[in-house]
Amino acid sequence: MGKISAGRNVFMYPMPVTLLGTLVDGKPDFMTLGWVTRVNANPPTIGCGVGRHHHSVRGIEENRTFSINFPSADLLAETDYCGLVSGKDKDKAPLFEVYYGELETAPMIAECPLSLECRLELTIENPTNNFYIGEIIASFTEEQYLTGDMPDIKKINPLLLTMPDNRYWTVGNFAGDAWSTGKTLKKK
Amino acid sequence: MGKISAGRNVFMYPMPVTLLGTLVDGKPDFMTLGWVTRVNANPPTIGCGVGRHHHSVRGIEENRTFSINFPSADLLAETDYCGLVSGKDKDKAPLFEVYYGELETAPMIAECPLSLECRLELTIENPTNNFYIGEIIASFTEEQYLTGDMPDIKKINPLLLTMPDNRYWTVGNFAGDAWSTGKTLKKK
Repeated sequence: MGKISAGRNVFMYPMPVTLLGTLVDGKPDFMTLGWVTRVNANPPTIGCGVGRHHHSVRGIEENRTFSINFPSADLLAETDYCGLVSGKDKDKAPLFEVYYGELETAPMIAECPLSLECRLELTIENPTNNFYIGEIIASFTEEQYLTGDMPDIKKINPLLLTMPDNRYWTVGNFAGDAWSTGKTLKKK
Repeated sequence: MGKISAGRNVFMYPMPVTLLGTLVDGKPDFMTLGWVTRVNANPPTIGCGVGRHHHSVRGIEENRTFSINFPSADLLAETDYCGLVSGKDKDKAPLFEVYYGELETAPMIAECPLSLECRLELTIENPTNNFYIGEIIASFTEEQYLTGDMPDIKKINPLLLTMPDNRYWTVGNFAGDAWSTGKTLKKK
C-alpha cells in the first residue's frame, strides 16, 4: 500500500473558517476559529476548541454566550488579522459593523453572510484547549445568500483552512448530491 | 442590514467529509461523518458527533477506538453509500481495502489518501448525538499526497458537505496564506 506516517498532529481537510464573537469586559472581540463542528442534532448545538490562553475564553466564561460568524473570501485580510492579533492588545471591533441578537452578549459581524448566536451549555476542559458546546439560539443571514430557503455555500463564498501548511482556500465545484449519489451502489 | 433568520438548525459551511471506521462484532464498519473537528492541540485530539442510533456507536463503545478517513472525490459514490446504508443491514467492508494500525480495532481504508487512528478518551452524551473525543495515535498517508512533509489538500482532493441542501463540493482555489495575509492590516 505504500502508507507512511503524517505524524499525530493532523488537522481536518479542510477546516471551516469562522470568527468567534465574544464580549470581553463589555467590548466585542473576534477570533479566527477553525476547530468547530455541529455536536447535537436536536437541540442544535455547536462545539468549538479554543486555546486556553485566548482572550475569547474570558468572554465565553463571563457571559456564557458566543457567536460563530462565517466570513466570505472578500473578508480574507480581516479574518486573518483576527487570528494574528489578540484582543488583549488590540480592539478588533472597529474592523466590522457589530450587531446583537436576543442574547445581547454574543456580538455578531454584519459583513459576514451568516452568523450563529449560541448559548454555552457545557465546557470540557482539555490539557491545552477548552471545548465549548453551545446551543444555537438563532441565526442571521440575508436574502442574497439563500437559494430557496437555504443558505447557498457558493453565495456565502466562505474560506477553508488547512494546517500545518497554513493556507486558505475557497470552495470549488459541486460534486454530487448527498444521500443520493451512493444509490448506484445500493443496487449491486 | 437586511438580516433575516436561517433558523436554528444551521450547519458548518462547509463540513469536511470523512468516513468513521469502527469494528462492530469483529467486522469493519464505515459511516459517513461530517461533524468532526480537532479539539485539543497537545495531545492531539479529535471530536465527532454521532447519532446515538448509528451502528458505529456500538463499535466505538465496545473497543474504545475509531478511525477518521478522508476520501478523495473519486470515492464519491462509495462515501455517499456509507451514509445511506447502515452496517446493521449491509456489510460495507467489501467496498474497500481495509487495514489496521497498532490499535488493531480501528479499521482504516487503504483507498483514502489520509487516515487517523484514534483512541477514545471521553464520551459526552447529548440528547440525540454522542460526542466522542479521541486522541490521534497515528496517521497514515502516501508520498503522493504530500508536498514537502505536509499533506497537500489539492493532492488529497477531499469532499466537502453542505446541509440541509445535502450537496458535496470539491476544494477550490488557493486564497491566501494564514497567519500572514492579515499583516497588511497590522500596520494601520
